[in-house]
Amino acid sequence: MSLYTHLFYSSELQPLLSDEAFLSRMLRFEAALARAQAREGLIPAKSADAIAACCEAARPDLERLRQEVAPGGNAAIPLVKQLTEQVAGRDPEAAGSVHLGATSQDVVDTAMTLTIKAFREWLEPKLQQLETLLTDLTRTHRQTVMAGRTLLQQARPITFGLKTAYWLEAVRRSRQRLEESRPRVEVLQLGGAVGSGNAFLTAEVLAETAAALGLRPAAPWHSQRDRPAEWAANLGILTGSLGKIARDVSLLMQTEIGEVLEGKAAGKGGSSTMPHKRNPVHCAAILANAGRTPQLVATLLAAMPQENERSAGGWHAEWEPLTDLMQLTGGAVDRSIELLADLEVDPARMRQNLEITGGLIYAEAVSLALAPRLGKTEAHRQVEMACETAITQGKHLKAVLAELDFALPDPDALFRPENAVGRSLEIIDSLLNPPAGGSYQTESHPYSRDDEASI
Amino acid sequence: MSLYTHLFYSSELQPLLSDEAFLSRMLRFEAALARAQAREGLIPAKSADAIAACCEAARPDLERLRQEVAPGGNAAIPLVKQLTEQVAGRDPEAAGSVHLGATSQDVVDTAMTLTIKAFREWLEPKLQQLETLLTDLTRTHRQTVMAGRTLLQQARPITFGLKTAYWLEAVRRSRQRLEESRPRVEVLQLGGAVGSGNAFLTAEVLAETAAALGLRPAAPWHSQRDRPAEWAANLGILTGSLGKIARDVSLLMQTEIGEVLEGKAAGKGGSSTMPHKRNPVHCAAILANAGRTPQLVATLLAAMPQENERSAGGWHAEWEPLTDLMQLTGGAVDRSIELLADLEVDPARMRQNLEITGGLIYAEAVSLALAPRLGKTEAHRQVEMACETAITQGKHLKAVLAELDFALPDPDALFRPENAVGRSLEIIDSLLNPPAGGSYQTESHPYSRDDEASI
Amino acid sequence: MSLYTHLFYSSELQPLLSDEAFLSRMLRFEAALARAQAREGLIPAKSADAIAACCEAARPDLERLRQEVAPGGNAAIPLVKQLTEQVAGRDPEAAGSVHLGATSQDVVDTAMTLTIKAFREWLEPKLQQLETLLTDLTRTHRQTVMAGRTLLQQARPITFGLKTAYWLEAVRRSRQRLEESRPRVEVLQLGGAVGSGNAFLTAEVLAETAAALGLRPAAPWHSQRDRPAEWAANLGILTGSLGKIARDVSLLMQTEIGEVLEGKAAGKGGSSTMPHKRNPVHCAAILANAGRTPQLVATLLAAMPQENERSAGGWHAEWEPLTDLMQLTGGAVDRSIELLADLEVDPARMRQNLEITGGLIYAEAVSLALAPRLGKTEAHRQVEMACETAITQGKHLKAVLAELDFALPDPDALFRPENAVGRSLEIIDSLLNPPAGGSYQTESHPYSRDDEASI
Amino acid sequence: MSLYTHLFYSSELQPLLSDEAFLSRMLRFEAALARAQAREGLIPAKSADAIAACCEAARPDLERLRQEVAPGGNAAIPLVKQLTEQVAGRDPEAAGSVHLGATSQDVVDTAMTLTIKAFREWLEPKLQQLETLLTDLTRTHRQTVMAGRTLLQQARPITFGLKTAYWLEAVRRSRQRLEESRPRVEVLQLGGAVGSGNAFLTAEVLAETAAALGLRPAAPWHSQRDRPAEWAANLGILTGSLGKIARDVSLLMQTEIGEVLEGKAAGKGGSSTMPHKRNPVHCAAILANAGRTPQLVATLLAAMPQENERSAGGWHAEWEPLTDLMQLTGGAVDRSIELLADLEVDPARMRQNLEITGGLIYAEAVSLALAPRLGKTEAHRQVEMACETAITQGKHLKAVLAELDFALPDPDALFRPENAVGRSLEIIDSLLNPPAGGSYQTESHPYSRDDEASI
Repeated sequence: MSLYTHLFYSSELQPLLSDEAFLSRMLRFEAALARAQAREGLIPAKSADAIAACCEAARPDLERLRQEVAPGGNAAIPLVKQLTEQVAGRDPEAAGSVHLGATSQDVVDTAMTLTIKAFREWLEPKLQQLETLLTDLTRTHRQTVMAGRTLLQQARPITFGLKTAYWLEAVRRSRQRLEESRPRVEVLQLGGAVGSGNAFLTAEVLAETAAALGLRPAAPWHSQRDRPAEWAANLGILTGSLGKIARDVSLLMQTEIGEVLEGKAAGKGGSSTMPHKRNPVHCAAILANAGRTPQLVATLLAAMPQENERSAGGWHAEWEPLTDLMQLTGGAVDRSIELLADLEVDPARMRQNLEITGGLIYAEAVSLALAPRLGKTEAHRQVEMACETAITQGKHLKAVLAELDFALPDPDALFRPENAVGRSLEIIDSLLNPPAGGSYQTESHPYSRDDEASI
Repeated sequence: MSLYTHLFYSSELQPLLSDEAFLSRMLRFEAALARAQAREGLIPAKSADAIAACCEAARPDLERLRQEVAPGGNAAIPLVKQLTEQVAGRDPEAAGSVHLGATSQDVVDTAMTLTIKAFREWLEPKLQQLETLLTDLTRTHRQTVMAGRTLLQQARPITFGLKTAYWLEAVRRSRQRLEESRPRVEVLQLGGAVGSGNAFLTAEVLAETAAALGLRPAAPWHSQRDRPAEWAANLGILTGSLGKIARDVSLLMQTEIGEVLEGKAAGKGGSSTMPHKRNPVHCAAILANAGRTPQLVATLLAAMPQENERSAGGWHAEWEPLTDLMQLTGGAVDRSIELLADLEVDPARMRQNLEITGGLIYAEAVSLALAPRLGKTEAHRQVEMACETAITQGKHLKAVLAELDFALPDPDALFRPENAVGRSLEIIDSLLNPPAGGSYQTESHPYSRDDEASI
Repeated sequence: MSLYTHLFYSSELQPLLSDEAFLSRMLRFEAALARAQAREGLIPAKSADAIAACCEAARPDLERLRQEVAPGGNAAIPLVKQLTEQVAGRDPEAAGSVHLGATSQDVVDTAMTLTIKAFREWLEPKLQQLETLLTDLTRTHRQTVMAGRTLLQQARPITFGLKTAYWLEAVRRSRQRLEESRPRVEVLQLGGAVGSGNAFLTAEVLAETAAALGLRPAAPWHSQRDRPAEWAANLGILTGSLGKIARDVSLLMQTEIGEVLEGKAAGKGGSSTMPHKRNPVHCAAILANAGRTPQLVATLLAAMPQENERSAGGWHAEWEPLTDLMQLTGGAVDRSIELLADLEVDPARMRQNLEITGGLIYAEAVSLALAPRLGKTEAHRQVEMACETAITQGKHLKAVLAELDFALPDPDALFRPENAVGRSLEIIDSLLNPPAGGSYQTESHPYSRDDEASI
Repeated sequence: MSLYTHLFYSSELQPLLSDEAFLSRMLRFEAALARAQAREGLIPAKSADAIAACCEAARPDLERLRQEVAPGGNAAIPLVKQLTEQVAGRDPEAAGSVHLGATSQDVVDTAMTLTIKAFREWLEPKLQQLETLLTDLTRTHRQTVMAGRTLLQQARPITFGLKTAYWLEAVRRSRQRLEESRPRVEVLQLGGAVGSGNAFLTAEVLAETAAALGLRPAAPWHSQRDRPAEWAANLGILTGSLGKIARDVSLLMQTEIGEVLEGKAAGKGGSSTMPHKRNPVHCAAILANAGRTPQLVATLLAAMPQENERSAGGWHAEWEPLTDLMQLTGGAVDRSIELLADLEVDPARMRQNLEITGGLIYAEAVSLALAPRLGKTEAHRQVEMACETAITQGKHLKAVLAELDFALPDPDALFRPENAVGRSLEIIDSLLNPPAGGSYQTESHPYSRDDEASI
């Protein structure tokens, strides 16, 4: 367990992703295989019982295993050896039926798949929790106006709820991807030495072993590695979307912006010598993870062109990165939940920051309001000049317009952010309550128009 | 067009993935937007006609565009400017309705999505062609015995058809993934400056613009980049699976193995001064591409945590890598088709290579055949000794067994590879004709058993 | 030439990194080889003259080359063929001496190395220009106080010159790395078919060919790829350091911070409909490139374990990524020069932003000033309470302290940023004028102390 | 400690790269800092003694640390807290002098640098050991002829010593790189909260702290991350070169080639049910590591553009990947030493494999031998026909030539591999005994010529 377990990872996941858990999944595979073979009359029922009993009772000697992994090159060889010894102690005849017809990769890949399944089962309610938090934030801040920012510059107003609704949508899509990939990812590996199957690995044995483990049966995929690669990619995408949330929060937390803050848990993110600081500690962890997962996905992809019926290196390169991906994704998920659960939002500061440009953020709205009377081009020209004046003289655009005696129907309304958030509310509503057809209703405040070619 | 266009890329794709094609997709977007806005009464129908006419007629000044991309930071700004000039020339009033309410990212992302769609439409029949070629190879070589190899060592016999059936299955899964991702990937981008929409970008405008372009409408996703990341990952996975085919072929083509050969097109892969060489030129190209795509996927993933409503750098980092991914994947697909269409398979050499181990490859089968009479342990012990003798004395295992007077029921059958391919044929049949339930039939030649714990 | 040539790349580099330039470097290699072989009496001097003349005069048929690259798998085969035809036209006997004893990889790798050399020669004065710009900025803003920010939070004051001095130092180190790697990177490749050399590739021929091309001679390195990998890594590091500059500038340009601005060239980064925006266009391009180069370096590294005497795929995977790395690095360098040459710095805004925390940024300095009288612990306790009051009541810390009647010797000095920049000036001076021993002088304003354990 | 510690990592490195070792390096930093500050009169000598004593005696509560790392975001905050408590227990006054003026990143980065230093000190003799093994192999097999292979095809003969000499050269270059980078990499980090230094971090304090830790002093580099990136890249390159060795060995070990074998340690790589197998277990581990390190290097490079004076995420992303890189590189080095120390080379099989092409591998030599009599073109034409006959009729080229009554001066010499290894021996000698000028002597057996344009 690393020094950074609680920072980058999820504490809850440690038992799930431990070596011990992995070994116990390998033993579950051996037990399920023996039982299936017994049911099919390929080995005595008594042998299967002995094997299954040993698998359940087994407490593998982890240190000895570690030593023996090296010469054989994987964890299956020494584990099967230890198991066979134990079975032999209980029922000598049964020893010959341990791991019958199977190959190392069968048990290692299936145990990895069971780990993936366990992780996915952990992940699902977590993503739902994330979605609930994001839904609540979106509802609460549906109308909380703030600056929309492009290329790190204030562009036009949006509402904070629009931002969180988009965060929400990305999490939803990740959940959908994970769901869709299950039939391809959560499958049994059981093909024997060269993936050809054999008399002990009949279709029935495969089906029953898979069923006992909660997996789908499949043709062997020893050197077809698109399945783990797909899983890896989906985790990389999810962590990327969480990184996007953390990016936004860390930017909005800047001293000079201060629109949101990470919750101030005991001892978290503060500094006694710099009392004004509230460090984005969760964000830093999530962003760190989102900075590491892309390369781990690449490792899985790069390992795909594996040699013949089993690879010398490519397969081995997958093991730890797959676990690392689950560790980092799980950590990013947990940190995101903590981040969003305790997020402090400051609507007043958001509104106040909208004033920083001295009304220039509304320039185009003014131009459009004048267009009916002056013509579009002339309106644009005059407003541009007014902006220039505002910038040069450091005045608010509204004041400049007043001085210049522009006849605007309702100048105050023009400079109200609520009138400049476009279709934010509609979009939010449609994302919170996605209609069958997926379309949005129009809204039409007279000033909620803009027709720019912004970058 | 690079020096290596015909080596790493698909010639067919060059017009599809050219700058010109991209610009014409941007113009299609502008035309579709204007027409949709006219239909919704947001701009005059006459203006929409003028815009659409200009979009169709436009031949953008590419060199001027290149120059102007730099100051603005993307291709939309100068293109919209050129378009607006042209529209103004045709119908001054219409000029004010060009790109109305839209933002640069709307047009660039939508054009990229249209490129993705065009590529996917090109790809689909190509993948079907690949599947047909692989199906044919599998049928033809269903019973062609060869060595299955693990960790680059001969392990047990398989059939070549089993190998190609697994290649086939991976391509199928990639096709499935691409299909499943379409609703998330092939969507319109249309959100205005900060992704909030506006009065010119109503739900109806979105729906109609999307429909005109053959895309789905969607809420804006300016800084939610899981969509392109998913697309990138799917291409990376596909190329990885093609890399696996190329890896196998290049290994089987080795001078010392010679079981398959790349077809000898004019001037291809040969050497007048080394007449024995047949270089795996297609394989090299596919493997090169499969060595490059993983990192490009990582670039897309790493770019995901984009700032606020539009990123300063992350978005820009996606453009060329997305195109590169399509170039490299398309090239890998084309090279794979050429590779498989012309593949020369040498069943005699395959069978001959099975003899290299002097029968040791069948040692376990012998052991199992003796087990009923000697008991499993004793059978194993005696066969191990026989193998040792065979290795030491450089004799064939069958000869050693004959000398040692082992009473084997049918020794020749034991050393016949056809009897040692496990359930290869069944698996092939089930993959060629996938049954509803996805299960496989059992087969049971007396000697097609093995129960090892191989690595 | 891509749509984004002028955005992501350097215009100056296009002729240097073009296919034509690459081919002419291949021809330079052939000419130099022939001349060296003639000097060593291995071929007639007349043949060498004919070959060299053809190499100089040659205008390779690029489109035919592209077509022929595919079957042979590299650019050397068709180019040598074209060259041989031309030589045969001029002097039939000389045709037999073209490319004598050499292999395709010799000419391709050497041409790539010559490209690297040409790029490095372009890069060197550019880096010096960068260093000059950074030195000037550092001198100008040696004392320009601003907020130092950690985890995106204001932490303590620094000077802008300190920031630019660190930017400068990183560029210097990259220049040093590039210089150190030259003897390993800028070497001839010339080993013949399997890298064993042959009678036409004597040590003397290698030495003379290398000398003629301005490279070092070396033992063949056909499948030892640490040389290009090192080059790639050095470019990746340089671009990363430029990305750091762009990151800082883009953050300091934020609407809410506004301490620096990218220069406003014609049409650059502005928006007529959002007059307040000044987009970090150069920064976006640099950051995009810095987001792409790491993965390209990984591609080179991942390609290193190449098979035997020449790889089937690994070598081929290097070609375009190496060029891409030079394109992206060159672009990042040019954009950085433009960025820094036109950078607008706003010292007033920097000073003003230091006031945002209402004096809390100086809390520790206050605490230290009180310590001699109150004891360190008590001083700390009281200042902490004062800060709490300042935050709660929204007052400036200095005002709170005045109300609480703290007897501070010189309260104004305490809240002056100049007194809180630590050893910034010294460090700057030592970096601008690095002393022999590399050490720094101490400075000791009474209040320039801090003893925190900040994060 | 992972299940795969002994497979992918070096057992010797575990104590060096453990969390405990890292924490003790952090404490060494604190002790060295306090002593330096005392020597400079900045804190009482008695305080420094108390701090140093506590640092030496400290056994940090690792589990508590792990818990506390999370809220603060790094390991320094809780460790300094624990240390301060302990110092306070021993000498209350000294507690105020713990970590004086320093920031978290100072101690974490310096501890990481000390880890790098410790690793480099471990690595150096290992690389020398590798070089000795490779030198011995090269000497032993200087004249051991074997097939040189390009694109996985037999091309021309080389000697095995030439291959190992090139392996050796790559390791040497990596050692050189590591040596050259030391002045940039093994430097102190000590800059205080914002990297500006302060009154407690004078130039003298830096110089003395650095000296005490065996590091160079340097200006703070908190957000200039080229130093760790360079270190990472050098490890990636080294592992890539080791991967190249493993690639070659694993290919040469193939059942059908069998020219070298991994040593057969107890239980290593063998299979009782597949007695003919000798799995490349070490190679698989090295190749797995070489498949993972490139992406970890990319993670370090991608993290370089860090924000302002300390990053929120970028810095954090470096910690574990840097350790992983040392783990994987160390493991690759140890496995390579084991691989080479026990490598079994089979010169007879190498010679035998040269016969596989039936003499075609010597076709060009024959052509050159005939050229003086027939003219080059005619000689080439006739040999091409002879080759065609040899291939079609499955005969040895020598036999075909004899039948066709070619008058070759010494046909046997022509088909002797020793005469076809070019300048292999010279190159080997020059690499084993690099001359001052780096040039090679020529050798000139009449038949050791070839003039092809091979690919």
